[in-house]
Amino acid sequence: MKLSPLQIARYSYVPKLPGMLRNGISEICVKEGALTESVADQEKIKALFPNTYGKREITFQKGKNTSVSKKQVVGVILSGGQAPGGHNVVCGLYDALKQTNKENVLLGFKNGPSGLLDDNYLIFDDEYINQFRNTGGFDIIGSGRTKLETKEQFAVALEVCKKHGITAIVIIGGDDSNTNAAVLAEYFAANNAGVQVIGCPKTIDGDLKNDDIECSFGFDTATKTYSELIGNIQRDANSAKKYWHFIKVMGRSASHVALECALETQPNICLISEEVASKKMSLAQIADYIADSVVKRSEKGMNFGVAIIPEGVVEFVPEFKKLIQEINELLAGSKADAFNLLSTWKEKYAFIEEGLTKESMAVFAILPENIQQQLFMERDPHGNVQVSLIESEKLFSALVKANLDERKAKGTFKGKFNALHHFFGYEGRCAFPSNFDADYCYSLGYNAFMLIQYGYNGYLSKVSNLSKPAEEWVAGGMPITKMMNMERRHGEDKPVIKKALVELEGKPFKYFEAHRDEWAVETCYTYPGAIQYYGPTEVCDLTTRTLALEKE
Amino acid sequence: MKLSPLQIARYSYVPKLPGMLRNGISEICVKEGALTESVADQEKIKALFPNTYGKREITFQKGKNTSVSKKQVVGVILSGGQAPGGHNVVCGLYDALKQTNKENVLLGFKNGPSGLLDDNYLIFDDEYINQFRNTGGFDIIGSGRTKLETKEQFAVALEVCKKHGITAIVIIGGDDSNTNAAVLAEYFAANNAGVQVIGCPKTIDGDLKNDDIECSFGFDTATKTYSELIGNIQRDANSAKKYWHFIKVMGRSASHVALECALETQPNICLISEEVASKKMSLAQIADYIADSVVKRSEKGMNFGVAIIPEGVVEFVPEFKKLIQEINELLAGSKADAFNLLSTWKEKYAFIEEGLTKESMAVFAILPENIQQQLFMERDPHGNVQVSLIESEKLFSALVKANLDERKAKGTFKGKFNALHHFFGYEGRCAFPSNFDADYCYSLGYNAFMLIQYGYNGYLSKVSNLSKPAEEWVAGGMPITKMMNMERRHGEDKPVIKKALVELEGKPFKYFEAHRDEWAVETCYTYPGAIQYYGPTEVCDLTTRTLALEKE
Repeated sequence: MKLSPLQIARYSYVPKLPGMLRNGISEICVKEGALTESVADQEKIKALFPNTYGKREITFQKGKNTSVSKKQVVGVILSGGQAPGGHNVVCGLYDALKQTNKENVLLGFKNGPSGLLDDNYLIFDDEYINQFRNTGGFDIIGSGRTKLETKEQFAVALEVCKKHGITAIVIIGGDDSNTNAAVLAEYFAANNAGVQVIGCPKTIDGDLKNDDIECSFGFDTATKTYSELIGNIQRDANSAKKYWHFIKVMGRSASHVALECALETQPNICLISEEVASKKMSLAQIADYIADSVVKRSEKGMNFGVAIIPEGVVEFVPEFKKLIQEINELLAGSKADAFNLLSTWKEKYAFIEEGLTKESMAVFAILPENIQQQLFMERDPHGNVQVSLIESEKLFSALVKANLDERKAKGTFKGKFNALHHFFGYEGRCAFPSNFDADYCYSLGYNAFMLIQYGYNGYLSKVSNLSKPAEEWVAGGMPITKMMNMERRHGEDKPVIKKALVELEGKPFKYFEAHRDEWAVETCYTYPGAIQYYGPTEVCDLTTRTLALEKE
Repeated sequence: MKLSPLQIARYSYVPKLPGMLRNGISEICVKEGALTESVADQEKIKALFPNTYGKREITFQKGKNTSVSKKQVVGVILSGGQAPGGHNVVCGLYDALKQTNKENVLLGFKNGPSGLLDDNYLIFDDEYINQFRNTGGFDIIGSGRTKLETKEQFAVALEVCKKHGITAIVIIGGDDSNTNAAVLAEYFAANNAGVQVIGCPKTIDGDLKNDDIECSFGFDTATKTYSELIGNIQRDANSAKKYWHFIKVMGRSASHVALECALETQPNICLISEEVASKKMSLAQIADYIADSVVKRSEKGMNFGVAIIPEGVVEFVPEFKKLIQEINELLAGSKADAFNLLSTWKEKYAFIEEGLTKESMAVFAILPENIQQQLFMERDPHGNVQVSLIESEKLFSALVKANLDERKAKGTFKGKFNALHHFFGYEGRCAFPSNFDADYCYSLGYNAFMLIQYGYNGYLSKVSNLSKPAEEWVAGGMPITKMMNMERRHGEDKPVIKKALVELEGKPFKYFEAHRDEWAVETCYTYPGAIQYYGPTEVCDLTTRTLALEKE
């Protein structure tokens, strides 16, 4: 393998720990805080987690290490989609584990939670782990999407743990994976397995966030990478002065990524799915909103612009959701047979017209033909429309074009409108972690081992005060059950960590709302440029605008 | 406008000049070299450029400045597509001009060459220009694609020059723009206009390259930006282990961008258009070549990979070129009417089957249906197929899938193949210039003014020895006519600068060829990461692998 100059240089970066963890393992002691309660549905959650519910919040501080000395064998798992910094969580965990006792062992289960069930693992040593310090990706052990949630799986997991003498499992994942970590912790406790479980908050989507988790790792690097690209495209738009760029960014459930990118780059338009849902906006209203910006800019001689579209936005448009439900019903099971026999699109269209309600047909009618066809042609094994395949950046640019054509006919738009499309997702999930993510992740891993060493189970590795310099960060742990409530999932009530959507009353959205009218008409683009690892601290060590505004 | 921390930091970067230009304006003298000849068609080129042909190559060196003192009024034009560093050419030009005489004036013609014809300009001052130092984009004055090539345009240009007392025009552009710069220079000379013309070599495509131009500016930054993204995607592929990513990169006429990205990132596959043309490869052969890699990797348990596809590659496939010609003829003029009357795709397909030769029909038949339809539906105003709209990354992944389905049926492929698609172009054209491009461009601009000051006309600003540290760079000028030959363009013989294609015998391609079989089967990915401006010199000041290999 040929290493890039940056990769070689990053090997010698020393991640910054919170001040209280900087004095060596022998000088880290625990300060217990208050007993905790889950954020809602306390009785139900308590009943489901009799052994792990209601434990105390803890923080670490400088002081004599009072943990019991025993050999630790820890297994680590990367769960779900990649996020920059995952390697550093493993490195921090490994370093604390080895600094505590050279005989301690760190196992990495391969390719996600399935590695634990399949007993597919590797054992870390210095030589291997040093290749991954401060690098992006999850290739250190691979990741996977298997969910650990059934009793049968837990029994297999326990067997594997016993076989290796495992004393603790660290699960690095998003909201679902941490929920499952809590359930596994409870299972181990109920069975007196002697295996602890610690979770670490990962996701580029930024939707694993609450009173205890200021931000999930990876969000900083991913949004900085997308913002670099959006800024470059804005500069291109402002130089060529002839294209509107519709840029879709990852984020199906929440629009944190889109919002952060907008705060970083000041585009003309940024849709926020949560606002679309809250205001019950229609496709036509959204198109009209964007077209207004196109017209106003055009009147100032600017036939160009940039619009950021969150990946999942169409699923938040009420009328579109209803249309999808109707299509799913219209073609459910054997009902699809009659449809499939029709040979021309014209015949199919007539079939659809007859089958949909008048309201949904009106929505269907305004869609561009290729998207109409896509809704009927590409369905999943259950016959359902695959909403995630819809190219919403192209959908909205087509709707805006149709809107502008109408205005042109009426004489209210005299400009030009040429659209280009982009989608940024995979580009940012495995970037070299920013200094912030490198520091934060290393601290999460280091801290996770301290929680293990002090015997905690069902805790989340918690590092907070993140908008301040790392010296002032606060390291500790929080029972995962504290973040849980009951939600209806697949027809069942389940204990889950509440997903954090963009708060329309929160400071980041409010800042955006206060500025977007100006951004829509003027050219206020900001060009963040590529992530820097070695420049002045104000260039290299800043975290997100979202966090800065939230902590203002 | 809100400036990013990086933009503020970049303002204080001081671009490095070639050693010989570092002693102040008063210490730059000219060393004349040999008389020059055009690279081919000497008699014809000489006849077309009687006043500017055959002049001497020159270099600058340290020594007493002997140029004649007169007030200079210089106009500068950005021509064609954006390339990182354009702003620094203008800054270097401005600084040399003002350092020579504070009374000198620099005009910027707006939105490309049309700004000169429309007399649409601004006058630079310190306050304005300082906002653009070491930044990306062409938004300092905008760019445009109008070609300056007719006598009528030249007459208008001369009038505008006289109005402002302009003594020289600097044209920053690609091969065509520099060709036109030479023609304009000859026109001014023939008319004793007293206006000099100097060209600067710009294009991210890297195809403006010859004995005199080691590389065009912007190529370094653009390919580093694409390589950052490709590396990130490779790391994602190697972590998730479930997708093949087909990544199209800009470059319609030449594959320098694709090749440089491949040298930087070591993907499994990279197509090179020039090789496809030279070996007369068919679509099926290319698909088979890629599918071989998919199968071999799959046999090693790796159902993932990355393939780089140069934007223009289908136009280099001989059988595909022929197919396009036949389609254009089949639907030329009124012949399209009969086709357009047909209502179903089945009827249209029959029409096509009848109209194409057997060979072309065989090619047509293997295309995925959506591309078949695209070829017939989306034609330009002349009725021709719009080859540039073809999404070649999707075309090749579909052909590979079909190939693998056949192998699966035969039992020779047992793996999985899921493809994702990306296109990188606009993301890199306006990035903050790398230190190399920032230095090179500033030097080109500074040097361009020295050529003006010493009275040269029809010259290209030439900075060479670029694979060495800037201190050792060589600054000078070369008559543009030296790079010219005669080519058939739109049915006419025209003097043009020869476009540089990837040389299949050149060292960069040879290096790639020697390694690609290993890269196709193993995972040899290199992860370049984001462009760094402030780190160790081996991270920040390297130029391209292409240049390094060429100068080896």
